[in-house]
Amino acid sequence: MNNTMNGLELRSLTTSGGQLRLSLETVNLDEPGPEELVVRVEATPINPSDLGLLLGPADVSTLRAEGTPEQPALVADIPQQRLAAIRARLDLPLPVGNEGAGTVVSAGSDVQHFLGKKVGMLGGGMYTQLRKLRAQDCVVLPGEASVEDGASIFINPLTSLGFVETMKAEGHKAIVHTAAASNLGQMLNKICLKDGIPLVNIVRSEAQAAMLRDIGARYIVNSTSPEFQAELTEAVAETGATIGFDAIGGGKLAGQILQAMEIVASRSMTTYNRYGSDTFKQVYIYGGLDTGPTVIDRTFGFTWSVSGWLLFLFLQKADPEVMARMRQRVIDELKTTFVSHYTKTISLNDALKPEILADCERKATGEKYLINPSL
Amino acid sequence: MNNTMNGLELRSLTTSGGQLRLSLETVNLDEPGPEELVVRVEATPINPSDLGLLLGPADVSTLRAEGTPEQPALVADIPQQRLAAIRARLDLPLPVGNEGAGTVVSAGSDVQHFLGKKVGMLGGGMYTQLRKLRAQDCVVLPGEASVEDGASIFINPLTSLGFVETMKAEGHKAIVHTAAASNLGQMLNKICLKDGIPLVNIVRSEAQAAMLRDIGARYIVNSTSPEFQAELTEAVAETGATIGFDAIGGGKLAGQILQAMEIVASRSMTTYNRYGSDTFKQVYIYGGLDTGPTVIDRTFGFTWSVSGWLLFLFLQKADPEVMARMRQRVIDELKTTFVSHYTKTISLNDALKPEILADCERKATGEKYLINPSL
Repeated sequence: MNNTMNGLELRSLTTSGGQLRLSLETVNLDEPGPEELVVRVEATPINPSDLGLLLGPADVSTLRAEGTPEQPALVADIPQQRLAAIRARLDLPLPVGNEGAGTVVSAGSDVQHFLGKKVGMLGGGMYTQLRKLRAQDCVVLPGEASVEDGASIFINPLTSLGFVETMKAEGHKAIVHTAAASNLGQMLNKICLKDGIPLVNIVRSEAQAAMLRDIGARYIVNSTSPEFQAELTEAVAETGATIGFDAIGGGKLAGQILQAMEIVASRSMTTYNRYGSDTFKQVYIYGGLDTGPTVIDRTFGFTWSVSGWLLFLFLQKADPEVMARMRQRVIDELKTTFVSHYTKTISLNDALKPEILADCERKATGEKYLINPSL
Repeated sequence: MNNTMNGLELRSLTTSGGQLRLSLETVNLDEPGPEELVVRVEATPINPSDLGLLLGPADVSTLRAEGTPEQPALVADIPQQRLAAIRARLDLPLPVGNEGAGTVVSAGSDVQHFLGKKVGMLGGGMYTQLRKLRAQDCVVLPGEASVEDGASIFINPLTSLGFVETMKAEGHKAIVHTAAASNLGQMLNKICLKDGIPLVNIVRSEAQAAMLRDIGARYIVNSTSPEFQAELTEAVAETGATIGFDAIGGGKLAGQILQAMEIVASRSMTTYNRYGSDTFKQVYIYGGLDTGPTVIDRTFGFTWSVSGWLLFLFLQKADPEVMARMRQRVIDELKTTFVSHYTKTISLNDALKPEILADCERKATGEKYLINPSL
């Protein structure tokens, strides 16, 4: 006997003809395997890290509703010159949504103890009513936590903890972080304040600086200040930061961070070395808020590195003990360090409305949407 | 009793007034310590890697002779806006010359067996008649080798061997090299051909390509070809290269190499991943033939790194066993793999002639000067 369940799932399709098409498809799920669960998804955020897969390189100003009330769809145009970069995904209807939370409605023979529990989940394809996945990709939420509390317990918490683990593993003692007023940046501040790790926050407005000051941030530099490079250098000098995590990617910022670190390192050099200091300086790019090229003005010798940083690769390589410690901390501090705020809860149908996705795409508005696919 | 010796030494002075001044100064040397040698320098090359210290950021078109026949000097103007970048060396008369060879004329008590021997030397300040240094920074040349043979046995040989050691230590199996027709690039070809390591040579002209083909190079890509990116990608596919060494630094080339590697990696991916492949791709920048900014168009996911690479730091960190193996190989293959060609031998006085330094600065002319300070 084989019981199947079915539910609606959001799919993002980019066509070789140059169109983005979001729609809801009915998917059928077989029974879970011995170590698998089926979860009714009740809360899944629209994170900046979801937008790449959701919208591809579509021109957001062309978003428009299509389809019928029963089968709604959202379409947008993709400029021809952007198609080459996404060749690998063309004509594939991809599921979307990195993380979420919900209630276990079916459990495999080895993981029956999950049945009926509220869990947080990582693994993609969360913009769906029913999600089958391995029990090891779920965390049981503590008794007092709601699914809203548990919807975002992986990406931002594990990324911010991952920065700290990376810093320690690579022998640095303080961090520079850009786009520092983000949800992730706020978590990183709470972690660093608690753990006594100096953190230089680079923000882009006085309002962002004030908000971080309110939660206790000590080193804040505004990149729109005319004295930005000098102010950044002094913050780096006070903290001793030699590693940076950059969410922006494009432009000169990564190089400016390296330059500040080199200026500080060269202050303690007793002899001139035309190859620069031997202090190793690292900037990791983990996002692409600016998708333009990274422009590195190499004014800081030869002891430096600019690299990509990706949560999934970090987790793949992480020691199981480190992983367990990180997960436990997220659960323990779910209502404090790792709390997330949402401004609106919407249905899967709502997620296909042009005005809502256009809102998400204007990252700076402060709107933060949570999808409840079971609405 | 204290015997002193004296000789002339070339000094490079950059003044806060915006002038470069090269001159010959008389230096007095005390007797060598127990593990030190005094060497009469007889052959020391003007390498591209010497020009930064020698000329600083001076405007080469303003080079002019000053001083007297007994005390010649060479001066040039430094544009005001370039002074900030060299603040640390302003008003210091710096010795120049990374490597050289000569005859040991005095030896400390523990290293008497060096006396009278011809040695190759590393350590800076080689544009001098007498150089005192630690015996461990010298290598005794084999019997049949001249000082000309031994003048360049460190920088290019150890750099090219260092690339191969770095490749192995970091788990790659083939190399991309830019400015591949250089002396260093030719050595790297000989090493890789001998050791069976696939090497992609990026050159800038058909003449350079033909020259490398003549010495047996198999993978050669011309960056001036209209199909450069596609041709580079195919060479990367054939070799499996995931590490590159770039002498140029400025411009888009480092990013183009990473993109070629990513395109090759993505060919074997079975599912779409918007974060790119998980194949780690590394480009090391080890020179600055183009001092403009490095422009990285991040079209290759998150599993990449662009870093500085510096021989001196590599040697500092290298295992003593690896170091010994590298040095021995240089001696063993001094007349084959590691042979250097010079077009002219000049005196210290000649090195202060405007036309000669202007020649050195036009890197592509094929002129390669060797200074004999004892002339």
